[in-house]
Amino acid sequence: MINHEFYMNIALQNAKATKGQTDPNPLVGSVIVNDNRIVGIGTHLKAGEPHAEIHALRMAGEQAKGATAYVTLEPCSHHGRTGPCAEALVEAGVKKVVIATLDPNPLVAGNGVKILENAGIEVITGVCEEESRQMNEVFNKYIVTKKPFVSLKSAITLDGKIATASSHSKWITSEEARLDVHQLRHETAGILVGVNTVIKDNPELTTRIEGGRSPIRIVMDSKLRMPLESKLATDSLAPTWVFTSQGYSKEKKEQLEKQGVEVFVTSGEDKVNLEDMLSILGEKFVSSLLIEGGGEVNAAFLENRLIDKLVLYMAPKLSGGKEAPTFLEGKGVEKMWDAVDVERLSVTSIGKDFKFVGYPVYK
Amino acid sequence: MINHEFYMNIALQNAKATKGQTDPNPLVGSVIVNDNRIVGIGTHLKAGEPHAEIHALRMAGEQAKGATAYVTLEPCSHHGRTGPCAEALVEAGVKKVVIATLDPNPLVAGNGVKILENAGIEVITGVCEEESRQMNEVFNKYIVTKKPFVSLKSAITLDGKIATASSHSKWITSEEARLDVHQLRHETAGILVGVNTVIKDNPELTTRIEGGRSPIRIVMDSKLRMPLESKLATDSLAPTWVFTSQGYSKEKKEQLEKQGVEVFVTSGEDKVNLEDMLSILGEKFVSSLLIEGGGEVNAAFLENRLIDKLVLYMAPKLSGGKEAPTFLEGKGVEKMWDAVDVERLSVTSIGKDFKFVGYPVYK
Repeated sequence: MINHEFYMNIALQNAKATKGQTDPNPLVGSVIVNDNRIVGIGTHLKAGEPHAEIHALRMAGEQAKGATAYVTLEPCSHHGRTGPCAEALVEAGVKKVVIATLDPNPLVAGNGVKILENAGIEVITGVCEEESRQMNEVFNKYIVTKKPFVSLKSAITLDGKIATASSHSKWITSEEARLDVHQLRHETAGILVGVNTVIKDNPELTTRIEGGRSPIRIVMDSKLRMPLESKLATDSLAPTWVFTSQGYSKEKKEQLEKQGVEVFVTSGEDKVNLEDMLSILGEKFVSSLLIEGGGEVNAAFLENRLIDKLVLYMAPKLSGGKEAPTFLEGKGVEKMWDAVDVERLSVTSIGKDFKFVGYPVYK
Repeated sequence: MINHEFYMNIALQNAKATKGQTDPNPLVGSVIVNDNRIVGIGTHLKAGEPHAEIHALRMAGEQAKGATAYVTLEPCSHHGRTGPCAEALVEAGVKKVVIATLDPNPLVAGNGVKILENAGIEVITGVCEEESRQMNEVFNKYIVTKKPFVSLKSAITLDGKIATASSHSKWITSEEARLDVHQLRHETAGILVGVNTVIKDNPELTTRIEGGRSPIRIVMDSKLRMPLESKLATDSLAPTWVFTSQGYSKEKKEQLEKQGVEVFVTSGEDKVNLEDMLSILGEKFVSSLLIEGGGEVNAAFLENRLIDKLVLYMAPKLSGGKEAPTFLEGKGVEKMWDAVDVERLSVTSIGKDFKFVGYPVYK
């Protein structure tokens, strides 16, 4: 059936196609329809380059006159790195604009719609709204809070373990699930581990799929115990940023910096201050953060109510072990009714494993 | 489409309807079809009462002559508490018999088919075989090994905990999931916990659904530490059996027996010998056992390769806690590749929770 949802879905599909490459900008797609024919399609490709509507208008050319424009996000109203798209739509002479979600960016937030309506254009909003909002969950948080959207990823056995009692964990999940993790890395701006993971596993934390972008590698290291010979401090495969506390070693900081590692000192006395860290990351345009920590790092984020999204890969196997670690340690809650609910929890099959995606809700 | 599968499915549905009431006999259903009309249906109701085919033949009466009989399990060939059904089918004059699975019972095992074929009846086997086999997974193990089919049930958080670090666990899962557990109890002959659960939680372990049958309550208690005032030792809501080791207290045994608790001494020196216990339970016609133990009891069963089936309820919540218990403790495996695979793992929604059902495969 050819209706608003039909065209908006095409715009959404094109928007999603650029996941991971528009950062820190949102994913946006646009379709222009005239006389029941698609006359232009566009998608935002990269920050600093034209917005989706502009690409679509260029393709449409003269046929934009009297047309209906579908845009997954409210056209912008401000002069940023590119001109305001709302004005471009007016100038092109479109008759109607259909929008999935209003822009949460306080610089836009309804102003785009106003420009269109003031020019006599009919505006319809809320078409495929939930899908568009979910697609830009990273941007929606970042643009409002200026802090990264935090996802926690872990791979566990059916009995909740991330390693055996002797710390052996290679591999819990199937190749398909591990490939999916590299897709996650490709789509995220920063990846975070604790220094213990660096010491124990000496990971690369890169995106090992053909054509994958590697995220900035971020280490929480309150005492700067990170080994100078670790891959993260030597391999140059992606930037490595270390966040530390007031109790850091000045000498070690200089050594790390000499090797090209950036060191950030947070306000925490003997632990990294997480809020500080997220603020610094936000200032440096890191809009999304993927935590691949052990149980203690993960628990610190949860206790500070900082996890926005949970991605769990569960393998169909039983490891056992009272001393085997789980992905959430720390003190934990005192009473079961204080446990953190996870909303919109979905489960899908991936290889032999299950993938859970959900959103913690803090009371 | 009216075919063998169509009629066999009706027989399977009727068989499943009596789940929990035929113990220690298998679930069996039968449908008799003559001239494209169902002329008889039957299901086995209770051990000692007529088998499914007999009920169906009675309903069919004279119309069984020349008919096709569908039976979910090979008709029996031996004179047990009821006469051999294979002979009854011959006497009734049926022309064709369609069977889902052969009877694993060594007393039958193909002999039923032989009787039918020797009488000139056409026999077709293997129609809806997998479904019939799964339906009788308890019987299939019990009839061959004379030991109960062991299911492990647990309720966990998304991070794998069965309680908080302070042992608080009420409630992890939703009412819907807890109701489902009572259905499991209704369908099982024995329910097992460790003595620590009795001391800590003082549970009833009964089936608290309208019309539910309560299983025999079985406690593993190597030193007979079970409190005399515990519900299991006083409430008479269902039989309570305690399994102990050679290190038991004679005085406590007498006290428990005085209160109506049966005490069984296994060969284990200071721990209950699990194989012994299962043999004794089998001898006493306990064909199925539901373990609702803590992490140590559960791990002991897994380490001894005694868990046949796993039923997990997972709540969409995060508890955290390094000291919070998981459902599988013990030593656990040394290397992740030694983890026990769980096959045929399915996941379904139940209330707000997920239910996992799977079958451990021991290497």
